[in-house]
Amino acid sequence: MNYCSGCGSAVHRIVPPDDNRLRAVCAQCNTVHYENPKMVLGTLPIFEDKVLLCRRAIEPRHGFWTLPAGFMELGESTSAGALRETHEEAGADIELGRLFAVIDIPHVDQVHLFYLAQMRSIALNPGPETLEAGLFLESDIPWDALAFRSVRMALECFFEDRRLGLERVHAATVTPPSDR
Amino acid sequence: MNYCSGCGSAVHRIVPPDDNRLRAVCAQCNTVHYENPKMVLGTLPIFEDKVLLCRRAIEPRHGFWTLPAGFMELGESTSAGALRETHEEAGADIELGRLFAVIDIPHVDQVHLFYLAQMRSIALNPGPETLEAGLFLESDIPWDALAFRSVRMALECFFEDRRLGLERVHAATVTPPSDR
Repeated sequence: MNYCSGCGSAVHRIVPPDDNRLRAVCAQCNTVHYENPKMVLGTLPIFEDKVLLCRRAIEPRHGFWTLPAGFMELGESTSAGALRETHEEAGADIELGRLFAVIDIPHVDQVHLFYLAQMRSIALNPGPETLEAGLFLESDIPWDALAFRSVRMALECFFEDRRLGLERVHAATVTPPSDR
Repeated sequence: MNYCSGCGSAVHRIVPPDDNRLRAVCAQCNTVHYENPKMVLGTLPIFEDKVLLCRRAIEPRHGFWTLPAGFMELGESTSAGALRETHEEAGADIELGRLFAVIDIPHVDQVHLFYLAQMRSIALNPGPETLEAGLFLESDIPWDALAFRSVRMALECFFEDRRLGLERVHAATVTPPSDR
């Protein structure tokens, strides 16, 4: 950040009064421009004993497999965002389930939230950010071609809970080195 | 947002190619300035049968009671941020517990996360954003002087779970009209 998004003047990096870290502050209008982590919302969609994955048509991690997920938009709830991303990326008709995982990725300033979801049919209609979408048995998950470690974590937790018959909300942290 | 924070030129509001909503896009360097909801991190600190609350020394809701909480900073995890806010606002020595609640507040573009916490002592040292901090029995909670509905929700969920002997992670949404 070099310029104030409000008035267009140059910003400088100072610790404002009553604060304890460097912020971008406008030298003209004194607006403090806080920068904060972003939330990524997604689902873990199930049809019978299979999980829905999407192969990414965009960077980062073009060509790798992911759960349907994307950045939270203004004005939406985490559940609405997770539902929206599942429609946009996979064209899947889902019934949103409960919160499943909250995964911190502090080195890229992101928090990933995943909800469980039941697919109402196997019909899929991938959007422009998805090369293909498909349903995978646990034994067929492309573990070596997953896009992000948060996706791997969510899938590992899901299959473990299914084996153990547990209903848990997972909280975990991805540490570097990581793809995301 | 009126100006590009990268190059200082004027932005215009357009729907970029392959997007489906209006974004602030720089007319000069074409940077798309996405705006996303912010996360607020806090704790529900317990000492024996009491809960820690802080009375706000800042707007919004100056003079009202809240759980220690604040905006997530770059480079930190949700748990680290919740711990930091508890130190900054109450000066409490806590052992952070499990994730307790994820509360969506879409009309103010915020998601509030609360962790449970055990206080190691009753010593408190409120920071500049707190008028006073104190421990409250359920029967003494100042329900009519709470700062935010997310705080009320978290406290209601906590006391209900304690009565029922349940260990749950709560996911809820605050709808307008609301204080926050």
